[in-house]
Amino acid sequence: MDKLLYGAAYYEEYLPYERLEEDIRMMTKAGMNVVRIGESTWSTMEPQDHVFDTRHLTRVIEAMDKAGISVILGTPTYAIPTWLVKACPDILAVTKEGRGIYGTRQNMDITHPAYRHHAERVIRKMMETCASYPNVIGVQLDNETKAYGTAGPNVQHGFVKYLREKFHDDLDAMNRAYGLDYWSNRINAWEDFPDVRGTINGSLGAEFSRYQRKILADFLIWQRTIVEPYLRKDQFITHNTDYSWIGHSYGLNSETDVYENAKAMTVVGTDIYHPSQGRLTGMEIAFGGDLTRSVKRDNYLVLETQAQGQIDWLPYEGQLRLQAYSHLAGGANMVEYWHWHSLHNGCETYWKGVLSQDFKENDTYREVMRIGKEWKKYGEHLAGLKKDNRIAILVSNTALTALEWFPISEKEEPLYRYNEVLMELYEVLYKNNLECDFLFPQNAAEYIGRYSLVLIPALYAASETLLQTIEQYVREGGHIFTTFKSGFADENNKVWSDETPHVLGKVCGICYSQFTLPENVGISSEKIEHLTGEVKHFMECLEPVTAKVLAGYEHYAYKRFAAVTRNVYKKGQATYLGCGLEKKALTAIVMDTVRNAGLSLPDVQFPIILRSGQNEQGKRICYYLNYSDSFQNVCIKEKGIELLTECELCENQMLTLSPWGLAVVEGV
Amino acid sequence: MDKLLYGAAYYEEYLPYERLEEDIRMMTKAGMNVVRIGESTWSTMEPQDHVFDTRHLTRVIEAMDKAGISVILGTPTYAIPTWLVKACPDILAVTKEGRGIYGTRQNMDITHPAYRHHAERVIRKMMETCASYPNVIGVQLDNETKAYGTAGPNVQHGFVKYLREKFHDDLDAMNRAYGLDYWSNRINAWEDFPDVRGTINGSLGAEFSRYQRKILADFLIWQRTIVEPYLRKDQFITHNTDYSWIGHSYGLNSETDVYENAKAMTVVGTDIYHPSQGRLTGMEIAFGGDLTRSVKRDNYLVLETQAQGQIDWLPYEGQLRLQAYSHLAGGANMVEYWHWHSLHNGCETYWKGVLSQDFKENDTYREVMRIGKEWKKYGEHLAGLKKDNRIAILVSNTALTALEWFPISEKEEPLYRYNEVLMELYEVLYKNNLECDFLFPQNAAEYIGRYSLVLIPALYAASETLLQTIEQYVREGGHIFTTFKSGFADENNKVWSDETPHVLGKVCGICYSQFTLPENVGISSEKIEHLTGEVKHFMECLEPVTAKVLAGYEHYAYKRFAAVTRNVYKKGQATYLGCGLEKKALTAIVMDTVRNAGLSLPDVQFPIILRSGQNEQGKRICYYLNYSDSFQNVCIKEKGIELLTECELCENQMLTLSPWGLAVVEGV
Amino acid sequence: MDKLLYGAAYYEEYLPYERLEEDIRMMTKAGMNVVRIGESTWSTMEPQDHVFDTRHLTRVIEAMDKAGISVILGTPTYAIPTWLVKACPDILAVTKEGRGIYGTRQNMDITHPAYRHHAERVIRKMMETCASYPNVIGVQLDNETKAYGTAGPNVQHGFVKYLREKFHDDLDAMNRAYGLDYWSNRINAWEDFPDVRGTINGSLGAEFSRYQRKILADFLIWQRTIVEPYLRKDQFITHNTDYSWIGHSYGLNSETDVYENAKAMTVVGTDIYHPSQGRLTGMEIAFGGDLTRSVKRDNYLVLETQAQGQIDWLPYEGQLRLQAYSHLAGGANMVEYWHWHSLHNGCETYWKGVLSQDFKENDTYREVMRIGKEWKKYGEHLAGLKKDNRIAILVSNTALTALEWFPISEKEEPLYRYNEVLMELYEVLYKNNLECDFLFPQNAAEYIGRYSLVLIPALYAASETLLQTIEQYVREGGHIFTTFKSGFADENNKVWSDETPHVLGKVCGICYSQFTLPENVGISSEKIEHLTGEVKHFMECLEPVTAKVLAGYEHYAYKRFAAVTRNVYKKGQATYLGCGLEKKALTAIVMDTVRNAGLSLPDVQFPIILRSGQNEQGKRICYYLNYSDSFQNVCIKEKGIELLTECELCENQMLTLSPWGLAVVEGV
Repeated sequence: MDKLLYGAAYYEEYLPYERLEEDIRMMTKAGMNVVRIGESTWSTMEPQDHVFDTRHLTRVIEAMDKAGISVILGTPTYAIPTWLVKACPDILAVTKEGRGIYGTRQNMDITHPAYRHHAERVIRKMMETCASYPNVIGVQLDNETKAYGTAGPNVQHGFVKYLREKFHDDLDAMNRAYGLDYWSNRINAWEDFPDVRGTINGSLGAEFSRYQRKILADFLIWQRTIVEPYLRKDQFITHNTDYSWIGHSYGLNSETDVYENAKAMTVVGTDIYHPSQGRLTGMEIAFGGDLTRSVKRDNYLVLETQAQGQIDWLPYEGQLRLQAYSHLAGGANMVEYWHWHSLHNGCETYWKGVLSQDFKENDTYREVMRIGKEWKKYGEHLAGLKKDNRIAILVSNTALTALEWFPISEKEEPLYRYNEVLMELYEVLYKNNLECDFLFPQNAAEYIGRYSLVLIPALYAASETLLQTIEQYVREGGHIFTTFKSGFADENNKVWSDETPHVLGKVCGICYSQFTLPENVGISSEKIEHLTGEVKHFMECLEPVTAKVLAGYEHYAYKRFAAVTRNVYKKGQATYLGCGLEKKALTAIVMDTVRNAGLSLPDVQFPIILRSGQNEQGKRICYYLNYSDSFQNVCIKEKGIELLTECELCENQMLTLSPWGLAVVEGV
Repeated sequence: MDKLLYGAAYYEEYLPYERLEEDIRMMTKAGMNVVRIGESTWSTMEPQDHVFDTRHLTRVIEAMDKAGISVILGTPTYAIPTWLVKACPDILAVTKEGRGIYGTRQNMDITHPAYRHHAERVIRKMMETCASYPNVIGVQLDNETKAYGTAGPNVQHGFVKYLREKFHDDLDAMNRAYGLDYWSNRINAWEDFPDVRGTINGSLGAEFSRYQRKILADFLIWQRTIVEPYLRKDQFITHNTDYSWIGHSYGLNSETDVYENAKAMTVVGTDIYHPSQGRLTGMEIAFGGDLTRSVKRDNYLVLETQAQGQIDWLPYEGQLRLQAYSHLAGGANMVEYWHWHSLHNGCETYWKGVLSQDFKENDTYREVMRIGKEWKKYGEHLAGLKKDNRIAILVSNTALTALEWFPISEKEEPLYRYNEVLMELYEVLYKNNLECDFLFPQNAAEYIGRYSLVLIPALYAASETLLQTIEQYVREGGHIFTTFKSGFADENNKVWSDETPHVLGKVCGICYSQFTLPENVGISSEKIEHLTGEVKHFMECLEPVTAKVLAGYEHYAYKRFAAVTRNVYKKGQATYLGCGLEKKALTAIVMDTVRNAGLSLPDVQFPIILRSGQNEQGKRICYYLNYSDSFQNVCIKEKGIELLTECELCENQMLTLSPWGLAVVEGV
Repeated sequence: MDKLLYGAAYYEEYLPYERLEEDIRMMTKAGMNVVRIGESTWSTMEPQDHVFDTRHLTRVIEAMDKAGISVILGTPTYAIPTWLVKACPDILAVTKEGRGIYGTRQNMDITHPAYRHHAERVIRKMMETCASYPNVIGVQLDNETKAYGTAGPNVQHGFVKYLREKFHDDLDAMNRAYGLDYWSNRINAWEDFPDVRGTINGSLGAEFSRYQRKILADFLIWQRTIVEPYLRKDQFITHNTDYSWIGHSYGLNSETDVYENAKAMTVVGTDIYHPSQGRLTGMEIAFGGDLTRSVKRDNYLVLETQAQGQIDWLPYEGQLRLQAYSHLAGGANMVEYWHWHSLHNGCETYWKGVLSQDFKENDTYREVMRIGKEWKKYGEHLAGLKKDNRIAILVSNTALTALEWFPISEKEEPLYRYNEVLMELYEVLYKNNLECDFLFPQNAAEYIGRYSLVLIPALYAASETLLQTIEQYVREGGHIFTTFKSGFADENNKVWSDETPHVLGKVCGICYSQFTLPENVGISSEKIEHLTGEVKHFMECLEPVTAKVLAGYEHYAYKRFAAVTRNVYKKGQATYLGCGLEKKALTAIVMDTVRNAGLSLPDVQFPIILRSGQNEQGKRICYYLNYSDSFQNVCIKEKGIELLTECELCENQMLTLSPWGLAVVEGV
């Protein structure tokens, strides 16, 4: 793509009165050049079985075309029409809570042949009538897809077939791998396989979660094979990936494996929602961007993000613009709001779009206009940002799911789980302006060698292969920073029975047999400043073997154990963190490890965020983002041009950023 | 009625041994003159299908008659006998949780023909045998009736017929009105109508709640048509209405429309339960009384209120008497305790009556005696109190239900919803001794013109007609005080798409497009003292059009918006409150509005409560109620006689009220 | 038994690789001499219907025999195999939540004939092949058995038969006893009996709980009749009783009646789990031990207790040993850890055994070695400890269950229920080194006369017989200490209708009609020091009749009532506590009552715990246990030998106990 895409999801179906021309006028005025349409409007597109009407789509596409606005076409399959459920009630997924009831979206069994039959037919009809328009630039497969907990007899039937294949029909092997003997759960004949919804076995349960992720990935591939024949070479295929959710986007999602899903896409898409107002930090934007970019190691699309958003997300002046540039700073080529207008009915009436229900120009719209204007002017400098990061974080759906079955600590509220360990590490990097990529178990072997330092949060469950990849990386000179709860179990959540942590113990030069929850336990270090404070959440009783002790526990019962260690292993080094830390202490040990890996530390910290890369013209682009409500001075390191003001800057020039303001410097 | 009724619900069925004569002796000693019997005793009255035995009722009626005690006869239908469920299991309501299970009361489908058949038969039998006794003064239809969430296929069948009639069979109109296109919920054929229990559409969902309220109102009318032929002219028909419940009576109930239900009654009845001991303020008594009185704009019956009540309601000395007079001060003609004796078994063993399980005289009984004695002596002065209030509050079940689907803020615990907005306003009036009536959407047009000031809490959803009624009222000289979240949606919860707030924007001289939850936002006013402090719960970004700004927000991001405004509109004035306030600030703006409406402010505040009216002899009766545990001096404004001490009082005489004490002054 | 048993549950089935010889080597090294095997391994023992394989058991028994290790054989029936559920799905219990789903243990209907058929067959097979080995010392029937909420139609069918027998087919008697008239719940024909799962009647509901406890007791007797014919005279029959659970063992369990269950055992067994680390007090060990010992008034087996245990139970140095001796100090003859090795899969992976998953020697194992060594050497002095206590606490499942239906206060979080009243009293005794036994309604008449003082916590529901037993005890010279909420209802939870408290009112010389929850109420006493502070949870308005008032309420509304009283009744005395107290005040009144009963008060308090008795050689054994992390000095009262150091001690010698340390003194 040679220009930035900027726009909104647009649902002409939901408008209370005819407004198409007026909406296009306002979009054009605001500098928008793309809309996403169609997804979730099946009941409009096929009002009755085999009765199709796509005029509401073609009408919009044609009008947008006239106005020079591109269209992304969403397959409508993530919400099913009422007639389909009446005709075929068992399309509704059977989950742990039993058969669902019609009402919400995303409640069907996406493996059900009747659903597949109807979904394919409506997708084909949409593609036939809509795909060939010149302004249709791409297709979005479904939306925020999951398996929706589908676990009926048909799904479990497939699961047993999957297990028979995985274990080559060897039941003993499966019983052993999952430890099913326990509490008499042993399965001695395949036909005895019990209802997996009731399992309390964290190995079998996690395997079923993995199978559900596979259902989802297979489903997207299936949709891709349907839409592909209708597409021109210049049209992309994407999908709106959503991450985990705690009221906003946050960490990995145990229901989706974004790496596998991406095999159905030519460009990876995502939605990113985040706190706003006084709680806006940009971290979720950066995290979502870095993760999405890392999947195909390429630019990505922000298919949804907030305009006014949820009720307490109404942005302060400047925030919407800061957010938009922050997306670009991660490598996004598109920012698309969800959604153009706020709904007049239904459960998302208070998830507001660019316009309120009164369709009047408002502060948010006025800020969109400013962004649109700037991007029209400077977009070619900003599109296609590439990065060459030296730090990576290894993330794993297997470990994430494992720690849902085996929580780090069940005693805490809010729970401290995989995503907390991950996000705490990410926050240290983000706030200290250390950019990073993500590695996945599937591509670690291929790419790990490119990095100077790899952070490994709570890799609780991992295959021997993945652990060996890490071992080889350090052996050949790499640096790792590994936290507690790593190398504990294999990919089936079977705890290793030799040494703890498995493989990583050797690499890190430590072992341990016992661990506990800290109660009035402190940490102290003679070697690293600020590595002090309270031990939180969880602690391992580390015994150094070849490692150097960086910090120990302050508590009479744990004096002889290490808390943080570092080990020289062959050509590389491995730092091991045996316990939860307060932010300040975590920052201290991570920063020390970064320095130890030979990387330089930026002298600017949050609330000033620096993000940079190379644009398509090969020029260095550096974003200076002010995530605060006060003026901030920042020193520009390299000679360049501030793009948005077109000012030339010399080396070491001081620049003042407005509250929630920013600067974009192109190197010369 | 020319005398006060004073008594208790009496369940001879539940007594552990024969006590009828002894109970009557104790009642008579205590000055009681009425009991309520019969309701919920179906299994005793009809022990087997078509086997009736009403001797336990006639026996009590006859014995009461001998002692000069009146009887209110309750139809027994709100709890069904075991044999009926065995014979016809589908009488149990199907709700969102599925088919109910026998055990609790109020779990049947009140629309079910089998239930109706059996209920009618047992009511007729009771009326035949009991209604004609001379001391039977009235009938209570059922008890605290609701639809009990009934939502089975039969009920939904009726709901679809109701919708077809409402929309004249025009599906497009319904889809449009409810915005069903969203997430593919569009219904393109009536036979495709999905199970409404699963709906996530707040328009359809609220309509179903309205339909459930209609089921209830229709049910009471049906019972009235059954009992009416058996009644003499002097016998009344009532129903025990209950309001919303948060451990005690509180605000409107979204499951009942008291205005519609009252069409089945000749006298409106209610129950009122409230906190006691150190938490006794009298507010719930006043609120329940004012609301109930306003339904038919006439006196009412307190069919149930607490004696010892729940475990932490045991009244301090004086409180029971203070409560009893407070009911009269609202216009009640009867106070009936629930119940005479405390139960020896079952789930309400700890909802205690006048007597404990030991049947001995106790402090509560001794206070009942005092009340009974006084009422016998002074009752004719106190009965039939009429009021002529100048302030009204407009309440709406439609708005209440709407805000259950669209909460003001989902972030708070406890939730801040319609009833909180309503009760905060009521509290300001109550504690400043400003008496008020209530208006309902059904009677606003007829009566609104009688008031100098109308308070309108969170009228989120309202018909065009109701909004025009308000507009006309102000146009012709009325004053209104409207809060945030008013005029936002129509009666189908469809957000207005023209201006916000709809109609009221014009009247109030403001508009707004955006709103948010306040975070460290203050309010300040140069015009009104004490209109200051923290903004809470919710805030609108008001833009004055013709209105005068009374207060603004203190926060850098919201400086340009108004928080409170006042507008001269034609002959009237409209004050608009754009945000949640602390109590002190809310009091300041409400008091200022009262003054601005030309009303005078009493110089006495809580804990001294003043309530007054005219008795049936046309004399002014004024209650001075001391809601505190200390002595309080109060200045008597008008010459009169303190009834209970028979002291003559001159103008401006100071009177000392005992802790939890009171005085009743009859003007001369 | 002439030696101490020390060992662990051992599940060779769950081991990840062949380790039997190595495990036995490590056990022997640690001084262990017993293992428990077999329970919950049905799916291994009978992999398919009627296909048996007990070699995994015989193999272990034989290897243990060679090493001189005894074996307790557990019947495998508390977890059912997958094939059984597939073959007979209705074996899964129907509970309030409906039919269960396979997965967890303890989810079947233990009354189901198909379950009984299969369970009997597998038990017989196990007994046939395993019971006759010389080192098999006993059998454990099932494990932690309950009725698991089973309440399907078959179970309810049995319940109705049980009721017909209880009430001699007299329905009126039942309706009266349970007060079913209320809310029309009256049952007028046995065939009308409604689904008891829905009942809201606390009498009927509690009766069903009692019936479920009977199901459990009958089930254990049934297992005993199966295993008994296979056993030698020297082999015992036990069962693993578990008490209530709040994250650890705590108080009585309303699902089990340990007294009734014990009829199936020759030796009573139990599990005891407790907080550890900084929260270790030994109280749960003492309570569980005292209660279990009291059932048959004999020594008992600790069939399960924690080694490393749950994640935050990892013992500090010394704690495991302190715990082990504390079990002996209560009269245990065996301490068996759950379990030998930590699991590599499944839901109890983090309920760790002696060894971690790496099977290496760790700190916990090393402390086991120390204990094992000491017990081998000194075991014959320590086994078979007998006690002759002067204080008893009367506990009742009927009262416990009653207070689940009628909570003392519903307003509090955490709830204050029967077990809180019980445990607060027990804590006072424990921390002041006053040892006690427990009495049960079933054996009170026989044994109550042996005690100088009987504490009676919240005996809410009790039969006339039990109350008369208490009356007779005091009449003949006994002392009781009774709390609020005693003597309120009969054994059917029907509140007594004569006087409150029933019978006990006369004994205690008081009565009351009213009670409430205290709000800013204090207590004060002129007679007893420290009987002061806040009144908590609940208070009764006591009126003394013949009693002396020990303390009154501080609150203007409750001045005339007593809070604590003492009464001379015939030859005895009765102290009555009418309200909840803070710990300090509770201690004051209990201690005063102990003194008043003529008992002497030890001058040593927690954290030093003294426990003593007579060993099998008739010598006095006294344990000095230091439940703190600091050194403690204690004065030895009697001349003797400190067993573990073999030091001679003279009278009044000071001894220093290490942190979490102990001494055992044998009198000479």
